Amino acid sequence: MKKWRVVIIGSGNVSFHLVRSITGAGHKIVQIYNRTLSKAQLEASALKTEATDDLENIIKDADIYIICVKDDAISLLADKIDLNDKLIVHTSGTTSMHLLKSASVNYGIFYPLQSFSKNLNIDFRRIPILIESNNAFLLQELTTFANSISDIVVPMSEEDRVHIHIAGVLVNNFTNHLFNMADQYLKDHKIDFSLLKPLISQTVEKLNYGTPAEMQTGPAMRNDLKTINAHLEMLRNQTSLHDIYDMLSKDILSQYKK
Amino acid sequence: MKKWRVVIIGSGNVSFHLVRSITGAGHKIVQIYNRTLSKAQLEASALKTEATDDLENIIKDADIYIICVKDDAISLLADKIDLNDKLIVHTSGTTSMHLLKSASVNYGIFYPLQSFSKNLNIDFRRIPILIESNNAFLLQELTTFANSISDIVVPMSEEDRVHIHIAGVLVNNFTNHLFNMADQYLKDHKIDFSLLKPLISQTVEKLNYGTPAEMQTGPAMRNDLKTINAHLEMLRNQTSLHDIYDMLSKDILSQYKK
Repeated sequence: MKKWRVVIIGSGNVSFHLVRSITGAGHKIVQIYNRTLSKAQLEASALKTEATDDLENIIKDADIYIICVKDDAISLLADKIDLNDKLIVHTSGTTSMHLLKSASVNYGIFYPLQSFSKNLNIDFRRIPILIESNNAFLLQELTTFANSISDIVVPMSEEDRVHIHIAGVLVNNFTNHLFNMADQYLKDHKIDFSLLKPLISQTVEKLNYGTPAEMQTGPAMRNDLKTINAHLEMLRNQTSLHDIYDMLSKDILSQYKK
Repeated sequence: MKKWRVVIIGSGNVSFHLVRSITGAGHKIVQIYNRTLSKAQLEASALKTEATDDLENIIKDADIYIICVKDDAISLLADKIDLNDKLIVHTSGTTSMHLLKSASVNYGIFYPLQSFSKNLNIDFRRIPILIESNNAFLLQELTTFANSISDIVVPMSEEDRVHIHIAGVLVNNFTNHLFNMADQYLKDHKIDFSLLKPLISQTVEKLNYGTPAEMQTGPAMRNDLKTINAHLEMLRNQTSLHDIYDMLSKDILSQYKK
């Protein structure tokens, strides 16, 4: 297997996990850039590699350049990098690969579909990596590189990445917000949220046994208006929780109506 | 440890898992009632115990009678049972223990906080059992019995059970509905829902590392109105998904506003 020489631009949560996974796969991180030198050095010293805070100093002969910075900063950075025809990718699921066209004639996306936290271990082999490139040959190369890190590599268009991002907001951000609402509500009544954890685990576990539609349970699914109305009455002083309960129940009711 | 003699009334999903857990703990199921004899027999033969479809024939000298039927059927059943002072409990989280007062002077609740499916294995030791009784001495006895099955046994009032049921609807039924909306949306765009599974697992895994509020991420949490509006524009033809996305985003925005 080809060992890639990799430059990492940025050192946040994505970068933190990505560099470990890349080196674990036998590739070499040859340089880490961060606009704050100490941050680049912190990461680079752990990997015994080079750090820089100067885009002019970026090594020119690496095999791939991976930008791991906030969405807003991608095009600003790309405008200051000149790599001629080297492959440069960014790791954002929500922005276009064309933001990189001023940096190189060959560019693309390398988007790990996961929500990263520094203090949470990640098994990169199980994280889907969505890839794209403006160069069909390099898309093949990028597939091989991504496969050395993850078992699930999927070429995906920008439009489809937006769709999956919307779906990700539903299953990750909104789901967590439901957990938060439940947590706040139970705190008000001095009940321990962790009592719900087995139920939460089961909700996710069930996805392995059928579609979510097949796994739906609860008062709204069984058209139990008595329970729904009792709950809404109980929530009458909590405007937003009441309205969210009402809206989601109505949506489930309409879907499962006999 | 005292070995209890148990009568199970009803043979649905809760009963299915409960009898296995009770016998596994060394207690004896002495009888299973179902209004359809063949169903009672199916369960009873697996446990080498007695089956009946006649409430008049219910054994009078068991230590506990556990009703595992639909909420609506509990009081109808209780009216036809006469156990004098034997402990009778039901397994519903949403109905009162007083529904049982015509069956015995000693009654209570034995509510496993989980969503049961027959074809999904359950580790009962990790499922919280919420208990209640009108007799303080028998509440102690019930605690001991429940602890022989589960590590998490919590006495809880009827009012608090309603609160935790509402929270359960949020984290289980509504969360599953979000999964379902994501699944439908991705199907429309021919994208595989299972790509989201690692993200979903991570969302739940994170609950072990902080409160849901601390773990919140996403466009609304970081006040990224540009992404929110782009998503809403993308969803403009899907009324209910659009409105749910809008409402939940606004609720997160209002909570995390700087």
